[in-house]
Amino acid sequence: MRHYLEAYRNELLDRVIPFWMERSPDPVHGGFFTCLDRTGEVYDTDKFVWLQARQVWMFSMLYARVEPNPAWLRLAREGASFLQKYGRDGSGDFYFSLNRAGAPLVQPYNIFSDCFAAMAFSALYKVDPEPAYASLATRTFQRILSRRDNPKGVYSKAVPGTRNLKSFALPMILSNLTLEMEHLLEPGLVNELVRAVIHEVMEVFLDNEMGLVLENVLEDGSFSDSFEGRLTSPGHAIEAMWFMLDLSRRFGDESLQDRAITTGLKTLEYGWDTTYGGIYYFLDCKGHPPEKLEWNQKLWWVHLETLVFLAKAYQISGNKACLNWFEKVHDYTWAHFRDPDYPEWFGYLDRYGRVQLPLKGGKWKGCFHVPRGLYQVWQTLEQTASH
Amino acid sequence: MRHYLEAYRNELLDRVIPFWMERSPDPVHGGFFTCLDRTGEVYDTDKFVWLQARQVWMFSMLYARVEPNPAWLRLAREGASFLQKYGRDGSGDFYFSLNRAGAPLVQPYNIFSDCFAAMAFSALYKVDPEPAYASLATRTFQRILSRRDNPKGVYSKAVPGTRNLKSFALPMILSNLTLEMEHLLEPGLVNELVRAVIHEVMEVFLDNEMGLVLENVLEDGSFSDSFEGRLTSPGHAIEAMWFMLDLSRRFGDESLQDRAITTGLKTLEYGWDTTYGGIYYFLDCKGHPPEKLEWNQKLWWVHLETLVFLAKAYQISGNKACLNWFEKVHDYTWAHFRDPDYPEWFGYLDRYGRVQLPLKGGKWKGCFHVPRGLYQVWQTLEQTASH
Repeated sequence: MRHYLEAYRNELLDRVIPFWMERSPDPVHGGFFTCLDRTGEVYDTDKFVWLQARQVWMFSMLYARVEPNPAWLRLAREGASFLQKYGRDGSGDFYFSLNRAGAPLVQPYNIFSDCFAAMAFSALYKVDPEPAYASLATRTFQRILSRRDNPKGVYSKAVPGTRNLKSFALPMILSNLTLEMEHLLEPGLVNELVRAVIHEVMEVFLDNEMGLVLENVLEDGSFSDSFEGRLTSPGHAIEAMWFMLDLSRRFGDESLQDRAITTGLKTLEYGWDTTYGGIYYFLDCKGHPPEKLEWNQKLWWVHLETLVFLAKAYQISGNKACLNWFEKVHDYTWAHFRDPDYPEWFGYLDRYGRVQLPLKGGKWKGCFHVPRGLYQVWQTLEQTASH
Repeated sequence: MRHYLEAYRNELLDRVIPFWMERSPDPVHGGFFTCLDRTGEVYDTDKFVWLQARQVWMFSMLYARVEPNPAWLRLAREGASFLQKYGRDGSGDFYFSLNRAGAPLVQPYNIFSDCFAAMAFSALYKVDPEPAYASLATRTFQRILSRRDNPKGVYSKAVPGTRNLKSFALPMILSNLTLEMEHLLEPGLVNELVRAVIHEVMEVFLDNEMGLVLENVLEDGSFSDSFEGRLTSPGHAIEAMWFMLDLSRRFGDESLQDRAITTGLKTLEYGWDTTYGGIYYFLDCKGHPPEKLEWNQKLWWVHLETLVFLAKAYQISGNKACLNWFEKVHDYTWAHFRDPDYPEWFGYLDRYGRVQLPLKGGKWKGCFHVPRGLYQVWQTLEQTASH
């Protein structure tokens, strides 16, 4: 696997990270541009809080784990400062988006701004132990926990009572965030949260009969035969399975390992487009027409998170199916998403693998899944190599 | 044009309307199923208020204008009764969706439920003069006018003050709704509204420099260089242009006619996919990557509304460009959207013209654009033929 290892490391350090270092910082107002076209030119200046936070996390993490490059720490601090100044409303919740200068555009309707802000300040605190970073991270985490049962708050459009759904996204992200924030949380809280999210992911949202993870279930955990209830997102489920693998390693839970690997592989077989290659974005678990018009598109993050899952699953289990799938997904991903002419990767392909939007960053794609995926695969392959 | 005339009439009366009459009514709870697969089987039982209302309007309109078929009136009344029983919240606003039995699922965040409810009860009153229909139509219309400056109300996610946008959708739909409801409104109010919406459509949202209609502008009418501000939807703009042609005829405004025809043709040239044919769903007016992943898909309503515009524009002006475009769009539309094997038409094609979702109805496609478009073209061609 040596040739893979070098490809992932070099792509990360020579092409992707320099792209964000050069193209993304706003020298006038601070924070990061994320709407960058194929060549890296800024085409929109709005600032999406969750992408700002993800980039702060990324540079803090690289500084901590790859090398203490002062330029990386400076970028992380500058992004954090922009978020500290402009990111929150009066209740301490993080807005969804700001204009270039930091004035709020879209309300905190989406709790993922808060999740990634907590992750960002927590990671920055590891490399720059300013008490303000720690307290902002923990306060934000507490707000997330208190909003857990109603994450959309007043912005929820569901009429309470008729069909009370809960969404996979929150336990899924908490399973990663809790580990990320372990150094700032009480061990008792960590254990309690970890137990709860593993239960939610593997026993509530994972439908036993189908062996698939559902994006939404009824409050009592049962199946809802509706557009939302039938919705599956293979990439989302597979990403959650590598979070489960990290948790299983951290807490020495071998049975969780096996179930996560089985579920990830089953989801991949289900989500793979056997005609044109690549993994579908959304599928209706009963085979009905999905509500989402983009259901059969191929998205960068789906494929990168699947590579992370497969690398980890292979490293843990030595299972040849994981290796075969890794090679297949690797070939598709590098051939279709990587841009040979300009740095960073395309994000959106149509079903046939053609570029659907020629951007490197936008409202939903920032400095996150490509570099995190490359980093995770690189690190996993190094551990495999040193066995 | 005789062969076109018969094709549109026969398709409407022999294939499309029978499909909805047979497949759509819910014999148990009333109202209409709209989630119908390729063959007409129900795949989801949720009831979307705006689609319920559109179907009531459709059958009332056909009864008034095509023939007094008692089955059509019965269907319209049954749909209306379901809406009267279950459609509204305590303030009289119409929910977005209900479950099969009529329990509310999604709050009245979307004023188009109300717009189509007003249109439905107003049309039904024309053929069945129950005072309750008239009063529900006019009360709903008043609620729409009072919510006009903030149609999303508490469900708006925009932070007030930073970038106050207004949306083309409301003046666009009011330009049609006001004519539809003329028999129930004070003439003074009609004149005032018509003047206001023509101004909004042709002078505020129609960008003079580009000659294109924008989906969102700033409150003062100026251009917003943002994802929302740069967004154009060619089909939406062209549909508005046939509303303008109807208004120009009703009020004898020839200058409006010319401007609407010029704008519609210009939009069609801009929106036409010269490589694969068909009209794009969304484009960024500056050529940047649009935010919408479905931007290059080809949607049924876009093509049907364009055919209505072209038929009307040709009938009014005799302009050969309208005829040539009509033939071109007709050929694409009938070849790609019409299903030769089962009745009703496909709604969603990918850029290349392949069926993207094999449904005949869903959450956003009901008994509306196909039959209304077929009816409008048929009627326009009859008027042209009888000149």
